[in-house]
Amino acid sequence: MTQRIPFSGHPIFLGPLAESLPGWLDEQGYSSVFLIADKNTNRLCRPALPVQSAEAFVVGETAHAGIPMETLKTLPSCEAIWQAMFEARLDRKALVVNLGGGVVGDMGGFCAATYKRGVDFIQIPTTLLAMTDAAIGGKLGVDFQGAKNAVGVFQYPAAVFIDPVFLKTLPARELRSGFAEVIKHALIGDRALWKKIQSMPAGSLAATNWGGLLADSIAVKTKIVAEDPREAGIRALLNFGHTIGHALESYFLKTAEPLTHGEAVAIGMLCECPDAAELAETILHFFPHRHIPETAFPDLWKLMEQDKKNASGTVRMAVPDAEPFSMRWVALNPAEAFGRLQRYNLLSK
Amino acid sequence: MTQRIPFSGHPIFLGPLAESLPGWLDEQGYSSVFLIADKNTNRLCRPALPVQSAEAFVVGETAHAGIPMETLKTLPSCEAIWQAMFEARLDRKALVVNLGGGVVGDMGGFCAATYKRGVDFIQIPTTLLAMTDAAIGGKLGVDFQGAKNAVGVFQYPAAVFIDPVFLKTLPARELRSGFAEVIKHALIGDRALWKKIQSMPAGSLAATNWGGLLADSIAVKTKIVAEDPREAGIRALLNFGHTIGHALESYFLKTAEPLTHGEAVAIGMLCECPDAAELAETILHFFPHRHIPETAFPDLWKLMEQDKKNASGTVRMAVPDAEPFSMRWVALNPAEAFGRLQRYNLLSK
Repeated sequence: MTQRIPFSGHPIFLGPLAESLPGWLDEQGYSSVFLIADKNTNRLCRPALPVQSAEAFVVGETAHAGIPMETLKTLPSCEAIWQAMFEARLDRKALVVNLGGGVVGDMGGFCAATYKRGVDFIQIPTTLLAMTDAAIGGKLGVDFQGAKNAVGVFQYPAAVFIDPVFLKTLPARELRSGFAEVIKHALIGDRALWKKIQSMPAGSLAATNWGGLLADSIAVKTKIVAEDPREAGIRALLNFGHTIGHALESYFLKTAEPLTHGEAVAIGMLCECPDAAELAETILHFFPHRHIPETAFPDLWKLMEQDKKNASGTVRMAVPDAEPFSMRWVALNPAEAFGRLQRYNLLSK
Repeated sequence: MTQRIPFSGHPIFLGPLAESLPGWLDEQGYSSVFLIADKNTNRLCRPALPVQSAEAFVVGETAHAGIPMETLKTLPSCEAIWQAMFEARLDRKALVVNLGGGVVGDMGGFCAATYKRGVDFIQIPTTLLAMTDAAIGGKLGVDFQGAKNAVGVFQYPAAVFIDPVFLKTLPARELRSGFAEVIKHALIGDRALWKKIQSMPAGSLAATNWGGLLADSIAVKTKIVAEDPREAGIRALLNFGHTIGHALESYFLKTAEPLTHGEAVAIGMLCECPDAAELAETILHFFPHRHIPETAFPDLWKLMEQDKKNASGTVRMAVPDAEPFSMRWVALNPAEAFGRLQRYNLLSK
């Protein structure tokens, strides 16, 4: 049964798409529908979509197999999408449907929000990461010169439709990647959810019934976004693990063995957490250890210096404080950052 | 003396910069100031700015002399600006100052509104066009594949500072270009302003005292934008003359003799106006006639088909109705568009 998750920002439907999407679309009366998908969601998820769209753009269609989606989250991809939108002659009453993970949602949303100064878009996340985090709350954008989400806007989607059935299409590693954000939300604001997670057996993700975990996890995100939609304060807490995590993700993206976003954030949380012992147990239970070579450090530090949360030249991380939904800023200097990465290397031995 | 023009969207100061800008800046407490200018405003206007900025980007600095600024209003220019912002390590509390005409304001505003998902910016327009129109109301963007302002966002500036002293730096043709938008505002909503304009002698623009005309003209724009910030309805009326005008501007931009924006809009208004006789007298009084060759028509029509105002595949123009601040939509088909361009050719003989 479809559940409507309470959020003042935009509607969020959790449940089978067929129960919510066609009726919602009928009510809106858009002039046309333009679909953005990726190679996988175009093949695995699009046929199950209870709305058909003649016009579509498939991210990565011509890219080599195995290329990480994140490397396609760029301005040249946006130009290809805008061009396809123009060729489809979308007017301002058109709807863009983003069917995919975080890359499709962030980039497709950005293209929609800027095409002719903005057309409506909806997010239909197909990964755990996007369902619990990326698709919700209107952070849009693309990477620029190696810096994550460096160019973008805040703009709410017209609605978000989350159907856990798509999680069955995911490889185990992708599921695990999204699980990092579920852990993050639990640590930020939901101790009951955190207890649930701690009791989950390793290797159990594929067999998990996600409905309840998703509702709990999304509730943490919506509570924070409703309070601070433009990240003037508490919303930065959703970046827990991401100051160091984004740097790791960008760094390893250029190597032969990229980390997924969630793997990077999991390591990031371990490094950023004031007291990592309890967290380490769960993280190392679900995520494999990845050694961070000392030689990577100068590049990692340079990436941290580009973080959007920095203020007045100081690199800083938003970490959870003692109470749920409370945070504090922790400033990082190179020695401190180096020590925290070493701590992770040691923790994991 | 500086005048504060009433507008709910963003502050607008009209008068000497020194009276308003330094005090306003002190109140805001930005972490740093990044200036965007063009070759001319960098040389002619920047020295008079009562705020100094170490970091700056100059649009067109390396471009050939004589290249129309509009041809630089593109995504590659945005990439250069974003890169300069990153190199200057601007954080989210930085302020971007756009010192220039419509191109600098629209493009610099877009870059600011999307850099790290948005930093504040102010508009300091230096052309008549930007003072009376482009700098006000938060329409930002760049051209894409020949389509005007095809990629952009709506985002209000933190403030707009209009100092008519900069109009003294303008060549006559540039002044005339902006005057087309003053005429447009008069036709849309201010009959007293229209009478004033009709009584102005030709060749008088350089000697005009702009303060009063600017205040009247801006008041028309702010009244409409306040009512309809996202152009869901009446704001489209500010596009009077622009359906045909934008097509002409884009078309002639690729020829050896580009039209200025205002020249194109002046012709556009003449073509779009239901009864052009009275208007023709004034337009042809201030603007030289430019013959539109019949062979240009297929290209012009194609450009009109890309117009952002089109809905459900119909090319349409927003034209003033009988009452001030009232509008109606007029649909265009190729024969009708062709006839209107021919009417202009005949009118001007």
